[in-house]
Amino acid sequence: MLNEMDPGFIRPWRDDRRTPFIEIDAWRLERNLQRMQQKAAAAGVALRPHVKTHKSLDIAHRQLALGAVGITVSKPSEGVVFIRGGVRDVLLAYPVIRAATLEPLLAEAKRHQARVTLITADAAGVEAIAQAARVQNMPDLGVYIKIDVGLGRVGVSATGAAPLRLATALQQHGLRFAGLLSHAGHAYSAGSAIELAQLAAAEARLLLAARQRLAQAGFPACALSTGATPTALGAPIAAGLDEIRPGNYALLDLTGVRLGICRPDDMAMTVVARVVAVNDDYAIVDAGSKALSSDLGPHGTGGSGWGIAVNQHLPLTYQVIKLSEEHGFILHNGVKPEIGSLMRIFPNHACAVMAMFDEYVLRDDAYNGKRVAIEARGQFT
Amino acid sequence: MLNEMDPGFIRPWRDDRRTPFIEIDAWRLERNLQRMQQKAAAAGVALRPHVKTHKSLDIAHRQLALGAVGITVSKPSEGVVFIRGGVRDVLLAYPVIRAATLEPLLAEAKRHQARVTLITADAAGVEAIAQAARVQNMPDLGVYIKIDVGLGRVGVSATGAAPLRLATALQQHGLRFAGLLSHAGHAYSAGSAIELAQLAAAEARLLLAARQRLAQAGFPACALSTGATPTALGAPIAAGLDEIRPGNYALLDLTGVRLGICRPDDMAMTVVARVVAVNDDYAIVDAGSKALSSDLGPHGTGGSGWGIAVNQHLPLTYQVIKLSEEHGFILHNGVKPEIGSLMRIFPNHACAVMAMFDEYVLRDDAYNGKRVAIEARGQFT
Repeated sequence: MLNEMDPGFIRPWRDDRRTPFIEIDAWRLERNLQRMQQKAAAAGVALRPHVKTHKSLDIAHRQLALGAVGITVSKPSEGVVFIRGGVRDVLLAYPVIRAATLEPLLAEAKRHQARVTLITADAAGVEAIAQAARVQNMPDLGVYIKIDVGLGRVGVSATGAAPLRLATALQQHGLRFAGLLSHAGHAYSAGSAIELAQLAAAEARLLLAARQRLAQAGFPACALSTGATPTALGAPIAAGLDEIRPGNYALLDLTGVRLGICRPDDMAMTVVARVVAVNDDYAIVDAGSKALSSDLGPHGTGGSGWGIAVNQHLPLTYQVIKLSEEHGFILHNGVKPEIGSLMRIFPNHACAVMAMFDEYVLRDDAYNGKRVAIEARGQFT
Repeated sequence: MLNEMDPGFIRPWRDDRRTPFIEIDAWRLERNLQRMQQKAAAAGVALRPHVKTHKSLDIAHRQLALGAVGITVSKPSEGVVFIRGGVRDVLLAYPVIRAATLEPLLAEAKRHQARVTLITADAAGVEAIAQAARVQNMPDLGVYIKIDVGLGRVGVSATGAAPLRLATALQQHGLRFAGLLSHAGHAYSAGSAIELAQLAAAEARLLLAARQRLAQAGFPACALSTGATPTALGAPIAAGLDEIRPGNYALLDLTGVRLGICRPDDMAMTVVARVVAVNDDYAIVDAGSKALSSDLGPHGTGGSGWGIAVNQHLPLTYQVIKLSEEHGFILHNGVKPEIGSLMRIFPNHACAVMAMFDEYVLRDDAYNGKRVAIEARGQFT
């Protein structure tokens, strides 16, 4: 299906800068941001977008202007960049287990009177947060307990003794138990919209039941936060949730198209590259794995190639079937793109591509381009 | 074989900074650099290391100090960084087909009186170089003709009419025909040392025969330049070559170990990450695809995982079997690493990992660490 020439792959062209570059279509970006904000509002949940997708202050501020309650970040140093850039409500959805790792983020938050909320899935994490909070004198720090709802990565079981044990530990350390938080990353392997809806419903049931058990044990009603683009975009938002934290929905990519949660025309981000050689089998473009990443899809899911490409002069889609570091191999099946022509590449995984570049080109309706920084690129720690 | 506990995987540990970070062992790096320089000297060929592997001025200057005649870069903007950083002899081993792409590099070279040599594989490339040379008034620019020796990426056939046609076109445009250049990237798929030796010998035969045909047509004797770490390190350097351009040899990685061209103890670069969670199947570390890359190996070759990991407290090797953006999944098979402990990850592809970070930590013999910039990271254009 993805080989067919869906009109959604067709975009205007402007050969106005050195290749390769990331191009974000301002109108499609805005449509994606508005749709999710409207969906969250209609369901009565707060939207707290995960900015690891775009790592861009410009897009984060647009999300906040549309009604997002704050942002989600994936590492402390990523949070520091966004607080410095003016964001005042940051959830770090990463299990920090060492106080020193957290301290720069807390110090930055204090300096700017920003709210920081954390997560934990282990007693060592509670200790680390408590220690960092003491050092920075921030006693009222809110901490979510991370529940593993099926990805098998980070989090405690919703049904065992761990949530109660961790909530108690938070209290004992003088930290504020903020709620239960999950990431249904396994939804990237869902085969259908029905399966996505089932996964989203199952996730909510787990969180609601765990909250009820905590309430029975005397803990006050707390917030429930879920977050993954496949469930947030491709399934109804379950009743009883307080907050959703999708990230990828802002840009979207071939993974979303394959999952059926968006159409080709919804992809707001592409990579524009140039054909630098053509041989019997391939058109070679100047974007390789150092620009497109080698990601097949999030969490190791994905397709058989590294993107779908469209040439500026030919109404066809091509497959990117191999990558060197600075070269992409595009199978031309005898319909050879011209040397020097542009190719637009729709990547598998937008988040991975944004993490390779220092800036992107934002195109307005008239297709004029503006360079915008990706301020948090490279912030891993 | 790679699952066994080869003592070459054992390194000292120092938990002195936030994770994840790239650690380069200064002694192993130096040994790798010296070995290749000595091999080149013994074979009577010039060494012109490809710096796309490390993108670091510090390492490039060390390579030059040991006797390298200059460097090889993969993109014009990468070349600009190294010229600004003091390198005065740069080969751009990338087929530029647009004058505007080349002009900043030539301008920088002129400003610093640096020598730049280029490659071409197409008439459009000759035109682009000639135009950029005119604009910058650099008539004596040397240009290699790129020969495809089996990778099927960029280059003309050594046996057809193209080399003569391109050499003539260079002359007609007043450019200097510098020689014939190849990259045996297909050697990353070689199954044995014998096959590597055969590939290297076949590559040299193709270049020598093409040079002879050019000489018969009246072109003066020209240089022959080959470059790929598998052949440069794993095969004898063929007689008749003038220059080799390996890059990966400086750091090495699991790809080199799998190919049999180095031992685990030769890998100079690793990623140090921290265990942030442990579940029934996996230890989760704070380095994911945004740090380790999703590369299985160069040019799409490679193994079944994303690295081999060693824990600071356990004398075992583990497999990195899945990556999220900021999480690595390490299969523990029941021997659970401790939360908070460090893990050293030996990556599949050192070049891909260096391209993710802004800096690395260089460890000296006493295991003290110094932060060193990766100045050319993100230079794709």
